[in-house]
Amino acid sequence: MAKELTPRSENYSQWYNDLVTKADLAENSAVRGSMVIKPYGYAIWEKMQQVLDGMFKETGHQNAYFPLFIPKSFFSKEASHVEGFAKECAVVTHYRLKADEKLGIIVDPDAKLEEELIVRPTSETIIWDTYRRWVQSYRDLPILINQWANVVRWEMRTRLFLRTAEFLWQEGHTAHATEREAIAEAEQMLRVYATFAREYMAMPVLTGVKSPNERFAGAVETYCIEALMQDGKALQAGTSHFLGQNFAKAFDVKFVNKENTQEYVWATSWGVSTRLIGALIMAHSDDNGLVLPPRLAPIQVVIVPIFKKEEEFAAITERVQEVMKELRKRGITVKYDDRDTHKPGFKFAEWEMKGVPVRLAIGPRDLEKGTVEVARRDTLEKETLQFIHIAEKIEHLLEKIQENIYQKAFDYREQNTFKADNWEDFKTKIEAGGFVLAHWDGTTETEIRIKEETKATIRVIADNIAPETGKCVYSGNESKRRVVFAKAY
Amino acid sequence: MAKELTPRSENYSQWYNDLVTKADLAENSAVRGSMVIKPYGYAIWEKMQQVLDGMFKETGHQNAYFPLFIPKSFFSKEASHVEGFAKECAVVTHYRLKADEKLGIIVDPDAKLEEELIVRPTSETIIWDTYRRWVQSYRDLPILINQWANVVRWEMRTRLFLRTAEFLWQEGHTAHATEREAIAEAEQMLRVYATFAREYMAMPVLTGVKSPNERFAGAVETYCIEALMQDGKALQAGTSHFLGQNFAKAFDVKFVNKENTQEYVWATSWGVSTRLIGALIMAHSDDNGLVLPPRLAPIQVVIVPIFKKEEEFAAITERVQEVMKELRKRGITVKYDDRDTHKPGFKFAEWEMKGVPVRLAIGPRDLEKGTVEVARRDTLEKETLQFIHIAEKIEHLLEKIQENIYQKAFDYREQNTFKADNWEDFKTKIEAGGFVLAHWDGTTETEIRIKEETKATIRVIADNIAPETGKCVYSGNESKRRVVFAKAY
Repeated sequence: MAKELTPRSENYSQWYNDLVTKADLAENSAVRGSMVIKPYGYAIWEKMQQVLDGMFKETGHQNAYFPLFIPKSFFSKEASHVEGFAKECAVVTHYRLKADEKLGIIVDPDAKLEEELIVRPTSETIIWDTYRRWVQSYRDLPILINQWANVVRWEMRTRLFLRTAEFLWQEGHTAHATEREAIAEAEQMLRVYATFAREYMAMPVLTGVKSPNERFAGAVETYCIEALMQDGKALQAGTSHFLGQNFAKAFDVKFVNKENTQEYVWATSWGVSTRLIGALIMAHSDDNGLVLPPRLAPIQVVIVPIFKKEEEFAAITERVQEVMKELRKRGITVKYDDRDTHKPGFKFAEWEMKGVPVRLAIGPRDLEKGTVEVARRDTLEKETLQFIHIAEKIEHLLEKIQENIYQKAFDYREQNTFKADNWEDFKTKIEAGGFVLAHWDGTTETEIRIKEETKATIRVIADNIAPETGKCVYSGNESKRRVVFAKAY
Repeated sequence: MAKELTPRSENYSQWYNDLVTKADLAENSAVRGSMVIKPYGYAIWEKMQQVLDGMFKETGHQNAYFPLFIPKSFFSKEASHVEGFAKECAVVTHYRLKADEKLGIIVDPDAKLEEELIVRPTSETIIWDTYRRWVQSYRDLPILINQWANVVRWEMRTRLFLRTAEFLWQEGHTAHATEREAIAEAEQMLRVYATFAREYMAMPVLTGVKSPNERFAGAVETYCIEALMQDGKALQAGTSHFLGQNFAKAFDVKFVNKENTQEYVWATSWGVSTRLIGALIMAHSDDNGLVLPPRLAPIQVVIVPIFKKEEEFAAITERVQEVMKELRKRGITVKYDDRDTHKPGFKFAEWEMKGVPVRLAIGPRDLEKGTVEVARRDTLEKETLQFIHIAEKIEHLLEKIQENIYQKAFDYREQNTFKADNWEDFKTKIEAGGFVLAHWDGTTETEIRIKEETKATIRVIADNIAPETGKCVYSGNESKRRVVFAKAY
């Protein structure tokens, strides 16, 4: 078949690119580093959006929309922020084209902007400039806002979903009267992300904080969820930042507190992006294609009729209509693949490639016997079931698949998490892939050296790793706890 | 009260600006022409999106996402398209900032793009460049795709929602094997827009086609829905374009048809934007604030407790919980305004300003008598109702309000639609405001002259105006039908 993927064992990176293309998720566009998200890929994003949006609203947030463009001067106001983003900013300098006799359509030199505009790489600066107008008193706080938007970070080496110049995301930006409340918010949103990763993406994640060197540009503390991909590389799947009063000071956002004195406002921001689709692919999929957790699958069940004669097709279709009705009653998304242009074998392979969790096949014999063939995408197992109570059985099967996918990813992570207690061992284990738990002396200098020598970074100072004293695997200096190292996307 | 609006009769334009600000819908940002859509305004947009998205999916469309940036050369490929948009394009020329000792943060001159990128004002060009890769055979057609996105059109004179440099919209882009099918699609989407305007926005619209001079840049035919605002000006609320083979030819998108010969693909595009929120405001609102049709109101019912003592508040709240539960069962969105920081009078005015369709007030006497005070936002009428079956009564009232708002807007339009049969009469009627039905000789020359002399444009060649012969109101030449003139937003 034309649709075969490069096996993961042969070339993981090529397997990923093949899969994104052949499962119709996305493709590169004519604009360097910008992707086209195709309908099937976008449908997964819509499912993610729907769930996350509900979780944000349940925790008291509202959506709003802020400008795409940010005046250059705003960027300079928070020193570490501009340092973090300056190298990857798309800059708008003109606002008009014109026809030129010789050169065709050119940028009109007379339409140069007085101040250049940055296409947002993230919106802290424009949002805090706005919050200044919204906040006078503690009564105006908290502000709990989220935005669904596109952002641009000019990347030299891009990968579909994982690293693209333009990507889609949500960014929460909240303002609080107290430090404690802001920290609680940042921690709450991390929990929301972790819950989403585990319960919907079926992806186990470590939670914790970043080392100072890996913090968001402008943050006091960066919380993150970190997942392990099937090739042993880590992927940062979501971050939540406690920003202290940094942006409030940069944009002069003060409020009068209950004691009637002026104070700077406390801030958080938090985001996840279409990168999650990359994580979803790499966490679960196999050499036959995408494997989707049922809760995020745009199509949960596909039904393929097997027939030779028109009468058979009609009888099967009648049966299928009943099944579909029952499935839909239970909120299950089902597609009947009744195309007459393709054979069943082709359809099976196509829906496998697209990761549909459950496939039903119904032929004339099934009608006679009152049965249906049920195939699971996660294990590729098939069984023949009685029609009776079929919707209930499938609902139950979808839950089992969701759990199984999670368990498989969890087991993989457990089997690929190692301790390393000396430098040689550390290097060997990092090279082999997986999470490596090692002691670190707490200095950025050591962290940078380790990265230079092994390409590994500190992914997370994880909540679930208890403090223990030891010696830094690189410097031999005192260490209070193991942190999680890995090579990462 | 601080929240009073300039009356419409005094200064309609100021009334509009006051309302947008005071109902917390949107505000200007630090970026010229770009607005901040505040949570309450955005919630209206979310309701619109939800309904429209459902209607698009029901008619077979899927969502996808295409790049924000368009290479400049793409723009030049369709001659009338570039002519239409060249004057309002934001242009990205650089991809990096850097620190300069003297000047601070500057655009890095070494990071100049080889080819400038246009921030999409609309996406025909980048999408048709993509469709070329997707279409080989008639089996690949139709492509029925919609995108929810931000676009930028550099405007010199901006107005919140009505005309902003950046705005949010949806843009449908479809590809078809036959001219007939593409025309049917463009017409279908116009009907979808008209249905949405009437049934959800409670806004009567004329449907029809634009004159050649008012067509979309690159279209063969532009269909539109056109509404009349309360100040007698017209507003184009949505357009659907039959693009012929213009973009297929510009981007070389051909397919092999059933007869095995190559042919260019046929195209449509169609869109509505956050401009609809401006239309919604101007169609229904009054000097007390926003009037929202229940079907698009983020909050449909607000409940205000009236009490002096804490025990009264507790008893009222208990009753309110019951009512809310019943209302929510019916899918009605309800808010209990139990803030202790504001008095009932303030709350009444605030929810009036925000256009909540129904307000309930409950005091100790209501508890005794088993009653509730019900106030309608559209008519400002109050009545006292028995608690019994209250949810059912309110559900019915919301329907009545939806109908009444539509009827009021419909009556207004009927009363402000005039025929004019000579030039003096035409000028007087255009000046007074409203739709003016007049004969036109069909030439762009006449259309332009009329615009120069009166500022009126042909809004729509309306479906519901039967052909009749007559003399052009300007040139006196033969005319086959009356068309709809007005001054417009």
